[in-house]
Amino acid sequence: MPAGAALSGGVAGPDALRPLLDAVLAGLADGAALRGGPLPAGGPAGVAALVAAALGDRDHRATSATGEPAEPSGQGHPGEALADDGNHPARGRAGEPAEPDDVLRRLTTLLTRGSADPADPACAAHLHCPPLALAVAADLAVSALNPSQDSWDQAPAATELETALVRDLAALVGYDPATAAGVITSGGTESNLMGLMLSRDHALGRAGGHATELGGLPRDLSPRIFASEAAHFSVQRAAAVLGLGERAVTAVPVDRDLRMDPAALDVLLKEAVGRGETPVAVVATAGTTDTGGIDPLPQLADIAERYGVWLHVDAAYGGGALLSDRLAPLLAGVERADSLSLDWHKLGWQPAPAGVFLVRRAETYAPLARRAVYLNPADDEEAGYPSLLGLSLRTTRRPDAFKIAATLAALGRTGLGRLVDTCHDLAHHAAATVRAHPLLELHTTPVLTTAVFRYRPASGLPADADRVNAALRRRLLTEGRAVVGRTELPGRGPGRVRLKLTLLNPHTTPAQVDALLATVVAAGQAEERDEAERAGEPEGVLEGVPA
Amino acid sequence: MPAGAALSGGVAGPDALRPLLDAVLAGLADGAALRGGPLPAGGPAGVAALVAAALGDRDHRATSATGEPAEPSGQGHPGEALADDGNHPARGRAGEPAEPDDVLRRLTTLLTRGSADPADPACAAHLHCPPLALAVAADLAVSALNPSQDSWDQAPAATELETALVRDLAALVGYDPATAAGVITSGGTESNLMGLMLSRDHALGRAGGHATELGGLPRDLSPRIFASEAAHFSVQRAAAVLGLGERAVTAVPVDRDLRMDPAALDVLLKEAVGRGETPVAVVATAGTTDTGGIDPLPQLADIAERYGVWLHVDAAYGGGALLSDRLAPLLAGVERADSLSLDWHKLGWQPAPAGVFLVRRAETYAPLARRAVYLNPADDEEAGYPSLLGLSLRTTRRPDAFKIAATLAALGRTGLGRLVDTCHDLAHHAAATVRAHPLLELHTTPVLTTAVFRYRPASGLPADADRVNAALRRRLLTEGRAVVGRTELPGRGPGRVRLKLTLLNPHTTPAQVDALLATVVAAGQAEERDEAERAGEPEGVLEGVPA
Repeated sequence: MPAGAALSGGVAGPDALRPLLDAVLAGLADGAALRGGPLPAGGPAGVAALVAAALGDRDHRATSATGEPAEPSGQGHPGEALADDGNHPARGRAGEPAEPDDVLRRLTTLLTRGSADPADPACAAHLHCPPLALAVAADLAVSALNPSQDSWDQAPAATELETALVRDLAALVGYDPATAAGVITSGGTESNLMGLMLSRDHALGRAGGHATELGGLPRDLSPRIFASEAAHFSVQRAAAVLGLGERAVTAVPVDRDLRMDPAALDVLLKEAVGRGETPVAVVATAGTTDTGGIDPLPQLADIAERYGVWLHVDAAYGGGALLSDRLAPLLAGVERADSLSLDWHKLGWQPAPAGVFLVRRAETYAPLARRAVYLNPADDEEAGYPSLLGLSLRTTRRPDAFKIAATLAALGRTGLGRLVDTCHDLAHHAAATVRAHPLLELHTTPVLTTAVFRYRPASGLPADADRVNAALRRRLLTEGRAVVGRTELPGRGPGRVRLKLTLLNPHTTPAQVDALLATVVAAGQAEERDEAERAGEPEGVLEGVPA
Repeated sequence: MPAGAALSGGVAGPDALRPLLDAVLAGLADGAALRGGPLPAGGPAGVAALVAAALGDRDHRATSATGEPAEPSGQGHPGEALADDGNHPARGRAGEPAEPDDVLRRLTTLLTRGSADPADPACAAHLHCPPLALAVAADLAVSALNPSQDSWDQAPAATELETALVRDLAALVGYDPATAAGVITSGGTESNLMGLMLSRDHALGRAGGHATELGGLPRDLSPRIFASEAAHFSVQRAAAVLGLGERAVTAVPVDRDLRMDPAALDVLLKEAVGRGETPVAVVATAGTTDTGGIDPLPQLADIAERYGVWLHVDAAYGGGALLSDRLAPLLAGVERADSLSLDWHKLGWQPAPAGVFLVRRAETYAPLARRAVYLNPADDEEAGYPSLLGLSLRTTRRPDAFKIAATLAALGRTGLGRLVDTCHDLAHHAAATVRAHPLLELHTTPVLTTAVFRYRPASGLPADADRVNAALRRRLLTEGRAVVGRTELPGRGPGRVRLKLTLLNPHTTPAQVDALLATVVAAGQAEERDEAERAGEPEGVLEGVPA
């Protein structure tokens, strides 16, 4: 048996894992120390050089863009490993065997050094949370045992645990757990796809007179999905996947907080029906990616009900508010959704993925039901073997429910709610600092845990603001100093670029938020200075300068 | 900050993780010892009771179906945690705080005790591999750092690592890495969906005169997908998701080894074209789930080429043959596929998921390209920031590439190929034992690492064989003695139920395979005895017996 072939399972698994986990922990520590900040300096070229050097690519090793000494290359470039022709069974360029713990320490150091670490207070760009150590540890158990949720006999206890968790999550959103159903997903994109697929098969199957999932899309029904201008792009993507086409999505206008305008929705629905189109779904967003804006759920639910249209709520971000007594009222009405998306790898501090898809009425799941003779034969189901196969779009499926369940068991809703509240406070602190700063401009009051703003360049021209804000963000990335978000407000024309802090680290202090904003301002000023210098330089000066 | 809120990242992460990982390792050891076999005894009811007891559900605790003492319940039923009303901030039914390491040890013990462990030689039902300890350890680094592949600034090094790995995997299958493209997926189901989506948009977009992903499916084109009767059910599922409908899939007949009949495909294609239908894709299977049968790829590639139809190869199982010098020739022709699926969580010994999707020509990826202003704005891409967003159907995406890369670095193709060959040998050993046993009947010579067979009941009647084989498998599950696979051969009528051993554990010995087959025979005999007894009992005996 080759070195490195030890298994993680069985009675011997823990002993095989221990030294390898030690190597990973050492690599995490080494890499964090080498990085020394929220991300590696040098930008994409620098990171590419770092990776190439560590993988032993001679072409890149001499030309590290960071100018730092390359990591020892050692053995084990995956490419070389695959090119291995069998003449060098010991592998590695020098012919020595590659010890698994050496490989792990080296590659973990590389991954860590080359990461944008959301546990660093200056890494606050995306809905990219720093995971809880306990959730990460729980996930190790899942990797080691490798249960798969597509049949009971690959995941006996995990099947039960997911079923119990889904019931609890259904209760959390206000569904009746006895009649709701759901599944753990790879994230909001998959959950949105599922909600829109079920809505498609519900609306078009009914209108077209045949089961869409069997016979395909009926003709001449002109399906339409209604989502706000600020809805996640995965709504368009789902429409493309589902054969409806991205243009089937009608963008409903939003207010300044990026909340859907219910009156506009009503008009658009009426017009669509008047044209003989088939409304398939209204997608409400509970927590837009940028502002955390929450669509007016009760009004949207009324309208959807009036038109008999499926209501899908994308609460991938805002679902976290349900954990907080302070913020939960923002999601009133979510329990009227026909289907919804939650993401515990956003406000839930899980390592990705930890998505959740729920439906209010289990029977609406029917189009996804599947019988695979090797997974859930009818006689096994009759004999009491439960199957989650028909709940998911995937087949092999890791029980991501386990880390969520362990987190809930240790922290409870109350503990998690305190983390949500802390991040909410940080966003308000950031907003106050932005408001008070003459060179910064706040877009709107934070709803959840993000602050959207921009740096004001001296000229005050919209196009200048766009260019300088985009450039200062890249400057911070290249210098390895900060990871701040960048987005564009809905609409047309210049002046829509904004920066954002997505504050998901409850250990970050208000002082660290202020320091991060000061870093942004300094980068904006540096960018303006450099622009002025470039503009002031006669062309001739640049000529003849080696690139 | 509540207990349990420590993060896995940053400089402090490793120290926060260490005691929690110790708790998980202890739980893995405790659970494996408590289980003492390939899966827990007691069947679904027993496992449900075990889980309910451990979660502290009083209703179930007293009625453990296994009759064993319940685990200490302690605090931390996720349901209770969510029901927490904030009056008990310390949580837990007794009001004590739930220490994260206690929770982890308890829940890991439960998950382990309640697992079907593929590291046990008697757990050999599914394409459900026992993961390598080194891959599991590598995955810990990913959980701890939580990179997400949807933007460079959430995963600088991981973006580079995945790009390098995909290039290497493209070379492995015989694509030109300079012109191929691909992505790591959640498994063959997602990869098949992607291949069929691209083929749909290629064929229908061309025929319909508009970009399908934007405008939806053109009318009156009657799209058709051709896949063998033994193709994975995810092909039908993909057709349903994509709006084509399951009935768009034409089942092409197979031979005894479950390989597609190319002459039949040719006829079916000709007929479809004659009816004015639009062939969208031919799906070839390289390694059917049951027999490992590999469709005749060169002939199918010729036919697909002749009709100008997209060829997708589902090599989720058979792709592992590429690692073995002995078996790689079986996949000759795979390099002619327009797209293909590989799964490293099958013959690759990764914890799930570790799927791969590849296309031969990067430009065919166009329908999936996406621009999200908050993830890959055009000016950032112009400034050199790479984006993998348009390569995946997902948005948030864990870098599963890392564990694969670490495994390749430590074991190389040669080391992994030895594991593949060992499992191939085990399947042939199993087949020989089956052939030699008067009460067992082999279906066909193993191609990869599975042996398909059945127990022969005394009557010899097809319906009896089906019933007894299905029942003996459930008996083995309920007794906690073995997890063997069960499937049905294509066709109609009784006599199609088969058992299978999917041999993916390279540490299993031939003697252990023989012992497992002996266990199957004994269970078949016991089942027949019990059936005879039940048949012989006068009805009256059962009357009046309390249920």
